[in-house]
Amino acid sequence: MNNIYIIGVGLIGGSMALDIKSKNKHAKIFGIDTKMSHLEDALERNLIDEKATYADLKSADLVVLSIPVDKAVLELPKVLDVISDSTLVIDVGSTKGPVCKAVENHKKRRNFLATHPIAGTEFSGPKAAIHQLFQKKTNIICEVEKTAFKLQEKALQLFSDLGMRIRYMNSEAHDKHIAYVSHLSHISSFMLGKTVIEKEKNERDIFDMAGSGFESTVRLAKSSPAMWTPIFKQNRENVIETLDEYINNLKQFKSLMESDDFEEIFKEMQNTNHIKDILKGIA
Amino acid sequence: MNNIYIIGVGLIGGSMALDIKSKNKHAKIFGIDTKMSHLEDALERNLIDEKATYADLKSADLVVLSIPVDKAVLELPKVLDVISDSTLVIDVGSTKGPVCKAVENHKKRRNFLATHPIAGTEFSGPKAAIHQLFQKKTNIICEVEKTAFKLQEKALQLFSDLGMRIRYMNSEAHDKHIAYVSHLSHISSFMLGKTVIEKEKNERDIFDMAGSGFESTVRLAKSSPAMWTPIFKQNRENVIETLDEYINNLKQFKSLMESDDFEEIFKEMQNTNHIKDILKGIA
Repeated sequence: MNNIYIIGVGLIGGSMALDIKSKNKHAKIFGIDTKMSHLEDALERNLIDEKATYADLKSADLVVLSIPVDKAVLELPKVLDVISDSTLVIDVGSTKGPVCKAVENHKKRRNFLATHPIAGTEFSGPKAAIHQLFQKKTNIICEVEKTAFKLQEKALQLFSDLGMRIRYMNSEAHDKHIAYVSHLSHISSFMLGKTVIEKEKNERDIFDMAGSGFESTVRLAKSSPAMWTPIFKQNRENVIETLDEYINNLKQFKSLMESDDFEEIFKEMQNTNHIKDILKGIA
Repeated sequence: MNNIYIIGVGLIGGSMALDIKSKNKHAKIFGIDTKMSHLEDALERNLIDEKATYADLKSADLVVLSIPVDKAVLELPKVLDVISDSTLVIDVGSTKGPVCKAVENHKKRRNFLATHPIAGTEFSGPKAAIHQLFQKKTNIICEVEKTAFKLQEKALQLFSDLGMRIRYMNSEAHDKHIAYVSHLSHISSFMLGKTVIEKEKNERDIFDMAGSGFESTVRLAKSSPAMWTPIFKQNRENVIETLDEYINNLKQFKSLMESDDFEEIFKEMQNTNHIKDILKGIA
């Protein structure tokens, strides 16, 4: 695959471009983006070789659709409309149900592979793109059986080149589980940041007291609202369910404190402590 | 200060011992701990030079009390009972009101300085001790006026040797603010871990989908229940207040989602995004 088109040259698309180029000297990377400043940045940083438009996509071997999920459901059908029969199109969004649904009856459905690379940072845009972002990370592939076999093979080669391990899932299970291990974390972090910032309005210097533990728990509150609002919107029901359970657990913890049941609070923490073992291997 | 006694040779006490030794070749470090295995570990790792008991404390220049906060309020008066007039005693606990109250009328109150080094990791015990843990971290000193001037000076020299910057506060303000920037983060993290682990009972492989974002938000759920239960107990009212505000913010976010007000959700996240700037310089 030598003709590569990245639609949305941000953290994910840009990082993928970097690794593809360093692996394949013959690859030519074209960038498509609604933000001209992103394209200029991407050119300057050698993420892409040239700017392009949808009209050029017919010569693409690979199209990476790396834009916010609300835009992806609108753009993916247009992309499939113009590609050739041998083009592979992948998306990289954090929700998989809506994007699969958007093209379920498209005549080029078999050219599309729905993926979610579990990779990223709290930063966004072409300036955030880095080498080897995907190394040893998980890529979740949804509804693989709906993609042409030959294009599946090409995609697997690409992900192998990027250093990723693969997990297969249906898009419904993906959206349900990812709400727990990713979407909820972002909300807990944003609301933690909000709670402390609200306090800080009255109490100066409070952040002088913050250490690396606080930094770690609110890191995700630096994330892009433009990227995350549509994710929450598309995964609304699952996210509300996780929020319900999280809020109930917090309320229960609070009521244990109110009733001075610190023995039970100890046990609560002890029961969750084995997250140590679970987390081994992540990050 | 050459005769140094560390009571509780864990992450904080052990790390302090390491830095004191590397700064002062004449320092002799004595370890006191209820866990014999910790003392053995500390000797083996050269955190301490010798084991000791309370009876030896009369020859101490410096005593570092680095034990859980419920133990600290009981042990500190006993330590003050046996030290000499020129001994400096510091504690390092995450709550400051109760420990100050425990010795407010002690005849050796002026030998004690209440401190809270905002430093640490999610790990504990002598094996977690590391060099330069305190470098560029904040140390909060409470009720400094109650400590003898000469001993204040010695303490400031010590903290300067450790590379720390100093903030002064009364213990009431400390306990109130630290609930926001530290204690709440631990609960949010533990409850996030709990919420996901509960789910995992039914849904296997969910953690395969977790990335570095999840790891970051649940990192503090690895923390020691034996250390944290007494902190929550001693700072009960402040912590309940932060939990109330955090739960309310989460509920409000949930109700915005339920009413499909994603414009407002975008704004919520945007308003919290400037945590980026606030966090610069932390960690």
